[in-house]
Amino acid sequence: MIQTLEWTERGVRFIDQTKLPTEEVYVDCTTYQEVADVIRNMVVRGAPAIGVAAAMGIALGVKNSKAESAGELRRELDHICDVIGKTRPTAVNLFWAIRRMQQKFEAVRMLPAQQIKQALIEEAQRMHAEDIAINRAMGRHGSALMPASGGVLTHCNAGALATAGYGTALGVIRAAIEDGKKIHVYADETRPFLQGSRLTAWELMKDGIATTVISDNMSGAMMRQGKIGAVIVGADRIAANGDVANKIGTYTVAVLAKEHNIPFYVAAPISTIDLATPDGSEIPIEQRNPAEVTHIAGKAIAPEGVGVENPAFDVTPAKYVTAIVTERGIARPPYDQSLATLADDASQPTSTAS
Amino acid sequence: MIQTLEWTERGVRFIDQTKLPTEEVYVDCTTYQEVADVIRNMVVRGAPAIGVAAAMGIALGVKNSKAESAGELRRELDHICDVIGKTRPTAVNLFWAIRRMQQKFEAVRMLPAQQIKQALIEEAQRMHAEDIAINRAMGRHGSALMPASGGVLTHCNAGALATAGYGTALGVIRAAIEDGKKIHVYADETRPFLQGSRLTAWELMKDGIATTVISDNMSGAMMRQGKIGAVIVGADRIAANGDVANKIGTYTVAVLAKEHNIPFYVAAPISTIDLATPDGSEIPIEQRNPAEVTHIAGKAIAPEGVGVENPAFDVTPAKYVTAIVTERGIARPPYDQSLATLADDASQPTSTAS
Repeated sequence: MIQTLEWTERGVRFIDQTKLPTEEVYVDCTTYQEVADVIRNMVVRGAPAIGVAAAMGIALGVKNSKAESAGELRRELDHICDVIGKTRPTAVNLFWAIRRMQQKFEAVRMLPAQQIKQALIEEAQRMHAEDIAINRAMGRHGSALMPASGGVLTHCNAGALATAGYGTALGVIRAAIEDGKKIHVYADETRPFLQGSRLTAWELMKDGIATTVISDNMSGAMMRQGKIGAVIVGADRIAANGDVANKIGTYTVAVLAKEHNIPFYVAAPISTIDLATPDGSEIPIEQRNPAEVTHIAGKAIAPEGVGVENPAFDVTPAKYVTAIVTERGIARPPYDQSLATLADDASQPTSTAS
Repeated sequence: MIQTLEWTERGVRFIDQTKLPTEEVYVDCTTYQEVADVIRNMVVRGAPAIGVAAAMGIALGVKNSKAESAGELRRELDHICDVIGKTRPTAVNLFWAIRRMQQKFEAVRMLPAQQIKQALIEEAQRMHAEDIAINRAMGRHGSALMPASGGVLTHCNAGALATAGYGTALGVIRAAIEDGKKIHVYADETRPFLQGSRLTAWELMKDGIATTVISDNMSGAMMRQGKIGAVIVGADRIAANGDVANKIGTYTVAVLAKEHNIPFYVAAPISTIDLATPDGSEIPIEQRNPAEVTHIAGKAIAPEGVGVENPAFDVTPAKYVTAIVTERGIARPPYDQSLATLADDASQPTSTAS
């Protein structure tokens, strides 16, 4: 079992995703500032994992606090949430996790400071456990969408490493394989950060799942050759109308899938659905350091001074999305209705703070 | 002026394209076997440059021959052509160049051996000069297709470095800029070999042309944001029906261009048109070493033992191609007619062996 992140006696421990697949090393954060740094530097990445990391970072900051009253603790909590909220702008799970921790604080603020701290630590750990359960539920729903056999393309890493465990898109693939389907995964390498070749391939090989790495620009050729029966990806934020923000290149894959009449699925927890954002045009897209594009492993691969674009995400309009798999079931177009229904369904087990 | 390759007293000199953009070093080949190696190892690449390199390699092999009769020389020539013809299977310019050198031999075989050698050396040098003239003619025809201003996307390197000079696709861009158009080039980095970020960006910056490097998977997002007004690429082989084999990822760009109603142009000399190949399904696609995908700059970026696909090229069906720019003018659909007409047009200056 891959431990993407875990709460320890000392603080929060992360597998260092910048070092995989050649080195399996762990980073121990003992302050919330260090947790903010590992989110910013992509030691941990993936929307659900960022959410749990944020919650644990907040719990760690609160645990380290010397505050003796709820009022004092609240001022510190606000500052901690502010710092962690500025790490990465696109994944809505970050803000969802911050809100949930703030709401937990409100719910227990009448208790002594020590008990408030303990409640927040437990809440972060609960979110970790819930995330794995959510992914398993997503897998059960999504498995039926996967082909009985053949190639399934995924982009970036929406796996155990992008979550507390099991994965969203890769969780659906894992569940399909547990159900006896003979799936061969095609993993786009996903430049510039190479989450596909470095992380998806690594965790699938650990599970003995057949995996082929391709350069991002090969997916069109693979589809045209009939090697891809379905595409499944994760999401960093899903707008109310079903527009999906996800790792840069997802939109390209979605267009290719449409051109080849291949279903394009998104797997994401309810916490990724942002009903407050009406459509994708309002999702902030993080621009990252140009050096991610111009350098690989410290070596320059572009002339010095050249212009660079490095948006970390793109938006895939809802019209390209065949279905969205959540822990509460599968949403289909029209998404404004189906997503609202799923998100509001209070009869279902939920990970939201409502 | 970039010297991609040139005939020297010692043999054939190549700029080492595996070392750019960080090192500008040259490789001197003194035997035809060394020329075959530099073609195979992509020290020189790009269909027109491969054609000229093959011709110069043949000339070098013949120059070094100790044969004293035409018959003896012919046997050696056949062997040399065989070795060079096995370097890379997709670019038809390689076979076109071999055939042209063989035809030259036939035309002068009644001369003394020393004069035959001299004639073949001169033929290879003529092909070098012709290639630059062809690219300039292509530029004159193609300039009109370019937008008056804004972004033009190109994939791989179809520039001075892919030819004897000036370039095919980049030649059209250079001509458009010489005509006063305000073009900003978006260069796909073009994994796995990174011809876009390493070579296209390098040669365009040398000419002071505004260039932005993007990861291959960003082209969809750039198009959706309205940053791309046209796409222009080169070709390694064009079938009689207009299907275009070019660097892997070209097909993906073509599908994206169609989805965004952006014109998709191909610039290639007549020698790239292979009327003997009816459609793209019959073009052999070279599979290259998986290590190109799994390693960058010597560093592993994928787990050991993972499956890999590494086709060097893909085929873009003719229906995605808005127009094909040649030195004799612009071909438009239906290509079976327009390409045949251009290729057969004996009234035009020609680089073919007919």
